[in-house]
Amino acid sequence: MSPDCIFCKIVAGQLPCVKVFENDHVLSFLDIYPAAEGHALVVLKRHAPTIADATDKEIQAAVVACREIGQAVMKATHSPGFNILQSNDRVAGQVIFHVHFHVIPRKANDGLNFVHNRFKPEPDQLKAACERIKANLMK
Amino acid sequence: MSPDCIFCKIVAGQLPCVKVFENDHVLSFLDIYPAAEGHALVVLKRHAPTIADATDKEIQAAVVACREIGQAVMKATHSPGFNILQSNDRVAGQVIFHVHFHVIPRKANDGLNFVHNRFKPEPDQLKAACERIKANLMK
Repeated sequence: MSPDCIFCKIVAGQLPCVKVFENDHVLSFLDIYPAAEGHALVVLKRHAPTIADATDKEIQAAVVACREIGQAVMKATHSPGFNILQSNDRVAGQVIFHVHFHVIPRKANDGLNFVHNRFKPEPDQLKAACERIKANLMK
Repeated sequence: MSPDCIFCKIVAGQLPCVKVFENDHVLSFLDIYPAAEGHALVVLKRHAPTIADATDKEIQAAVVACREIGQAVMKATHSPGFNILQSNDRVAGQVIFHVHFHVIPRKANDGLNFVHNRFKPEPDQLKAACERIKANLMK
C-alpha cells in the first residue's frame, strides 16, 4: 500500500466507493467523475503506478473483469457498446498513479471520440517505426 | 476465419502488415491510420467480433502483449506514456469487427484527449447505476 494513494485507500476500505465487483486481484467501482452513466473503473488491489509495474496475473484478471463488467454496464445503461481504456503517465491522461482500467459505456452521438487526429504515414515511415519498436521489444 | 474480415486476412497472410510481434493468440502490427507515430494494434488470431466473443486466454494474451509493446513503443518514439484502448460496437468507434487493442504512444500536448465531457453525478445516481450493473453482472 502506498500511503498517499487514493486507490490504495479505497482498496483498504479507508475511503468509500460505489463497489461493482471484486476478486483476489482487482476491485471495481464507479468513477465519481464519469464520462458516461455507468463508467466503471477496474483497479488493481496491489499498488502499481503504471502497467509496466503490474504482473501478468494482475492485468489478466483486470482485462477479464473489464469484459464481464462491460457487458453488465451495457445492459444496465442500455448502451450498444463500450470502450476499455488504460492510461500510463500524465501525458496519457493518467491522474491516479495506481493501475486502473476504464470501462466506458457508449451510445450513438454521445460526444465521446477516443481516436482522432489520424493520419496516413508513408510505408517507409511505418517500417522504420516498426523496426525501432521491435529493437526495443527484446530489451 | 471470417471470409470478409480484413484482420483475418492479415492473420492468414493474405494481406500485408507491418508486423511488430506475434505469439499463439495474438498478432501485433502498426495501424496504417495511426493517431500517433508508433500506434500499434494487438489483434486476436482467431476471429471474434467483440470482446464478449473472446476467451479469457485470448484477452489475457492480448493485454500482456499490450504492456510489452507499449513499453517498446514508448522507447522507440521517445514518448513518456501510452494508452491501451479497446472498442466494442460501432458506437464505441469500432470499425473492424475483429477484436483488437490499440497501443497509442502519448506525448505532452499531442492533441489527443481520451476521456472528456466528465460530469459529477449525485451519490444516489451512482448507487442506482451500480445496483443495475451488479444485477446484470450475475446473468
